[in-house]
Amino acid sequence: MSEPSPSLLEVFENPFPQRNYTIDTVCPEFTSLCPKTGQPDFGTLTISYVPDKLCFELKSLKMYLQQYRNHGAFYERVTNQILDDLVEVTQPRSMKLEAAFTPRGGIRTTVTVEYPDGK
Amino acid sequence: MSEPSPSLLEVFENPFPQRNYTIDTVCPEFTSLCPKTGQPDFGTLTISYVPDKLCFELKSLKMYLQQYRNHGAFYERVTNQILDDLVEVTQPRSMKLEAAFTPRGGIRTTVTVEYPDGK
Amino acid sequence: MSEPSPSLLEVFENPFPQRNYTIDTVCPEFTSLCPKTGQPDFGTLTISYVPDKLCFELKSLKMYLQQYRNHGAFYERVTNQILDDLVEVTQPRSMKLEAAFTPRGGIRTTVTVEYPDGK
Amino acid sequence: MSEPSPSLLEVFENPFPQRNYTIDTVCPEFTSLCPKTGQPDFGTLTISYVPDKLCFELKSLKMYLQQYRNHGAFYERVTNQILDDLVEVTQPRSMKLEAAFTPRGGIRTTVTVEYPDGK
Amino acid sequence: MSEPSPSLLEVFENPFPQRNYTIDTVCPEFTSLCPKTGQPDFGTLTISYVPDKLCFELKSLKMYLQQYRNHGAFYERVTNQILDDLVEVTQPRSMKLEAAFTPRGGIRTTVTVEYPDGK
Amino acid sequence: MSEPSPSLLEVFENPFPQRNYTIDTVCPEFTSLCPKTGQPDFGTLTISYVPDKLCFELKSLKMYLQQYRNHGAFYERVTNQILDDLVEVTQPRSMKLEAAFTPRGGIRTTVTVEYPDGK
Amino acid sequence: MSEPSPSLLEVFENPFPQRNYTIDTVCPEFTSLCPKTGQPDFGTLTISYVPDKLCFELKSLKMYLQQYRNHGAFYERVTNQILDDLVEVTQPRSMKLEAAFTPRGGIRTTVTVEYPDGK
Amino acid sequence: MSEPSPSLLEVFENPFPQRNYTIDTVCPEFTSLCPKTGQPDFGTLTISYVPDKLCFELKSLKMYLQQYRNHGAFYERVTNQILDDLVEVTQPRSMKLEAAFTPRGGIRTTVTVEYPDGK
Amino acid sequence: MSEPSPSLLEVFENPFPQRNYTIDTVCPEFTSLCPKTGQPDFGTLTISYVPDKLCFELKSLKMYLQQYRNHGAFYERVTNQILDDLVEVTQPRSMKLEAAFTPRGGIRTTVTVEYPDGK
Amino acid sequence: MSEPSPSLLEVFENPFPQRNYTIDTVCPEFTSLCPKTGQPDFGTLTISYVPDKLCFELKSLKMYLQQYRNHGAFYERVTNQILDDLVEVTQPRSMKLEAAFTPRGGIRTTVTVEYPDGK
Repeated sequence: MSEPSPSLLEVFENPFPQRNYTIDTVCPEFTSLCPKTGQPDFGTLTISYVPDKLCFELKSLKMYLQQYRNHGAFYERVTNQILDDLVEVTQPRSMKLEAAFTPRGGIRTTVTVEYPDGK
Repeated sequence: MSEPSPSLLEVFENPFPQRNYTIDTVCPEFTSLCPKTGQPDFGTLTISYVPDKLCFELKSLKMYLQQYRNHGAFYERVTNQILDDLVEVTQPRSMKLEAAFTPRGGIRTTVTVEYPDGK
Repeated sequence: MSEPSPSLLEVFENPFPQRNYTIDTVCPEFTSLCPKTGQPDFGTLTISYVPDKLCFELKSLKMYLQQYRNHGAFYERVTNQILDDLVEVTQPRSMKLEAAFTPRGGIRTTVTVEYPDGK
Repeated sequence: MSEPSPSLLEVFENPFPQRNYTIDTVCPEFTSLCPKTGQPDFGTLTISYVPDKLCFELKSLKMYLQQYRNHGAFYERVTNQILDDLVEVTQPRSMKLEAAFTPRGGIRTTVTVEYPDGK
Repeated sequence: MSEPSPSLLEVFENPFPQRNYTIDTVCPEFTSLCPKTGQPDFGTLTISYVPDKLCFELKSLKMYLQQYRNHGAFYERVTNQILDDLVEVTQPRSMKLEAAFTPRGGIRTTVTVEYPDGK
Repeated sequence: MSEPSPSLLEVFENPFPQRNYTIDTVCPEFTSLCPKTGQPDFGTLTISYVPDKLCFELKSLKMYLQQYRNHGAFYERVTNQILDDLVEVTQPRSMKLEAAFTPRGGIRTTVTVEYPDGK
Repeated sequence: MSEPSPSLLEVFENPFPQRNYTIDTVCPEFTSLCPKTGQPDFGTLTISYVPDKLCFELKSLKMYLQQYRNHGAFYERVTNQILDDLVEVTQPRSMKLEAAFTPRGGIRTTVTVEYPDGK
Repeated sequence: MSEPSPSLLEVFENPFPQRNYTIDTVCPEFTSLCPKTGQPDFGTLTISYVPDKLCFELKSLKMYLQQYRNHGAFYERVTNQILDDLVEVTQPRSMKLEAAFTPRGGIRTTVTVEYPDGK
Repeated sequence: MSEPSPSLLEVFENPFPQRNYTIDTVCPEFTSLCPKTGQPDFGTLTISYVPDKLCFELKSLKMYLQQYRNHGAFYERVTNQILDDLVEVTQPRSMKLEAAFTPRGGIRTTVTVEYPDGK
Repeated sequence: MSEPSPSLLEVFENPFPQRNYTIDTVCPEFTSLCPKTGQPDFGTLTISYVPDKLCFELKSLKMYLQQYRNHGAFYERVTNQILDDLVEVTQPRSMKLEAAFTPRGGIRTTVTVEYPDGK
């Protein structure tokens, strides 16, 4: 199966670029495969961003994320990759992505990445 | 159907203009139409403001928001528009509007705008 | 019916005036009347203060608040008035009052005032 | 505006008519108008039924319920009417409809109707 | 102050008397006075009934209950009295009233009465 | 210290003996001592009864329960004893007492007793 | 893609066949495809059964359910099919399957099936 | 490591054998080992019983359950075994044991057994 | 009864004095007597501190707090006194004590004190 | 039994070392032994870190933590020790470990340590 591609992401013009404001989008139905075991992983993605000229369109976000359904991806890599794709396509003033995965072996993990890197 | 108009919003004199204080108003029964599909959207609006000379009257806020019931409106545009209307009518020291919409296609979105633009 | 009066509020000496500390008091059984309709309003008052020389006595606070039971009072005015009364009587280092009213017409409002005015 | 009509409801063949089983459908985005005041009402409908030969299709249920969006309807009448329409169209072995409306004037109401009438 | 009177309760015709169905009404803003101390009591009343020919009108229920605002009433007596008034006015097939009072002295009490008496 | 005595319990006449109805009383501030270790135990008592001629008075219930504050008592014994005392004094049509104790050593226990013994 | 097959389900001998007892298994990570739109559906399956001679093995249950990940399946059909497969393989004394799907278009559905058919 | 033995369980005389009453004991800190993988399992045991002549002592219950800490045990077997041990030692009028284990591979299981076998 | 004394508090050496770290201890079973009425008060104490050379031992903390069981103490005084005792005995880098008392007369109070006094 | 050793911890290369981002890992199934009494302790560990060149592998974290299962360890010591081991092996930019233990004697404790020491 080919790599997930940001080309599925569609954008529209930010209707209020003169104002800094925040859009939070929660996607509780993210699923991918563990590259080691081939077993499905499940998680909730929360994307928060301040748009500049462009906003991503929600239905295309859904289609973009579904590319991971049968794709092997480690937690840390997939979270960073999705942030990079969303930043590339929307060029936001800032963006944060939190990926909270369901427990495996009694342990659960959340990966949080930000653009620009402000720590 | 005509555009929603701020003329329905009524105000009263702030009884304590000498003090900076906050009024939070939560409206969990906001509904509008999706301009693409014509399907209803639902959301909760939370308005927080520090009044200056004027406060908005709650019953007139309700009537103002009901103008969106059969009006097509994208999430980002409607949230910014409502903030602009409320600011125009009450001229507050500051105001924040958070619009949390119910899920569509398994994805839910919250738009948060502020006056003045302080980011 | 006469105006609610702060004279019902009793105080006692702060037992540790040498230390800045906080007392939070939650009163979930506040009720007054709407001046327009005469209908009862209900709310929860949360008072947080750093006492100086005096603390208010809880039973007298209860009696003071009961004066509003059959008294007409708008949300914004009553919240500011109660803060003023409590400040007058206890002369605290700082005080905050949050009044969260139950929903009317599907809309609920919280008014938050502070002394001294620090915004 | 014309009366809401059950003709919008579409059905499909029950894939397991040989078994008695239950389908519960929750619609938290029901809204109608108060016939007295013209103000919007909001509620959550929960439909539970044991299908016989036919099941209702979910998208058509949504379109059917949207007919009430600008329709005046008392709680008791609308709940009984929707049950009658659903029974007429699907001819279920049994069906229960619970309509829980949001508070008005500090009071909230739930109407629960059943077919066949078993009390 | 005179006794609360059921004459404030208004009724309307049950629109579906041919069916046994249930109406649940929750009133979280009930308040009365303790006959011993004169202090306010607060509680949530939940009324569930199967109407026969008549239903009670919600706004008149609210006005009826407000008669207790400045009326002295013991928990057990007031709960039984309200059930008797509601039964007298609506003549329901059955009715249940649960009155859950807020804590006093660290103890909270709920009184539940039913018509007809079925235990 | 002497044994807790039911003589502190006061009763009043049931105002509606002609009806079977239920009074639930929750006491979350019960405390006694462990007879083995002398350490305090804490629990929540829930008393539900159908009164006959008499009801217990709430303030006297509180005083009665406070007799256990410095009294050694095993969970099973104290729960049965309190039920016996309440039954002796009020002669109810039926009564149930549930005593839910806080965890000790990671284990928590609830004892539930009923009058009359109906199992 | 081929049909999901019960042949992946493995069983082991019930260690206490002399006793009727219940095993509840909750699988919150079920996902399949909508046969109409090809979009993913998500749900939580709860299986409760009284085993006779055989119990199903949990890891094989997981592998069995993963067959639906890229398989088109209507709610009603898939729920009935999974029950039939589990009954065929384990021959339980009784079994119940509840499938609670996440909301689509603001509406959520739960399908509940039982063996043997006892309604 | 030797088999867990009921000999660690201590009993005391039921102080009210003349009454049928229930003792519920919740043990949220149960842990054993998976016999296949050697990995730890965790669960919450809830024991409910009507004692006859004897009650089990809580500290000895804790010691008894700790025998499983380094003992390999399948869910179904260990739940049935613990019930048998508790029944053997206390000879109760009835007893129910619910063992709710934490999720493994996204799936969680609860086993519920009863004495006497009443299904 | 004599005054509660810090002499019951035992300490042990901080095993990592080279690092600033926080220990939070929650005691939900605090009880004392109201000095005015003699009635019991109940509360939850939360102690958070950064230890320096010494940590307090938990069992001795429990014994220390039990001294208040039959001791009259106003909310403000007892909270400040316990902080002073704990600071005296452990000499921490910083410490905060929050005492949340259960409601009396429908009003609940929380007192929060800190060392050193940093406001 | 030998001391728990960090040698069980395995690492992998951070796939995005060019970005500061956070990984939160929650382990609710930690258990060790009390060195005084030999009784088991239970707790939830939450590890949050900004990786530099290396991330710890989750399965090896699980094996590392299981070394404490039969190991005597005081709360403060074990929390500091685990942080030191994780820092030694992964050399993170920063790391925080919160260990929340279940109640003992009605008192519960949480120990929170950070690297580097920033207070």
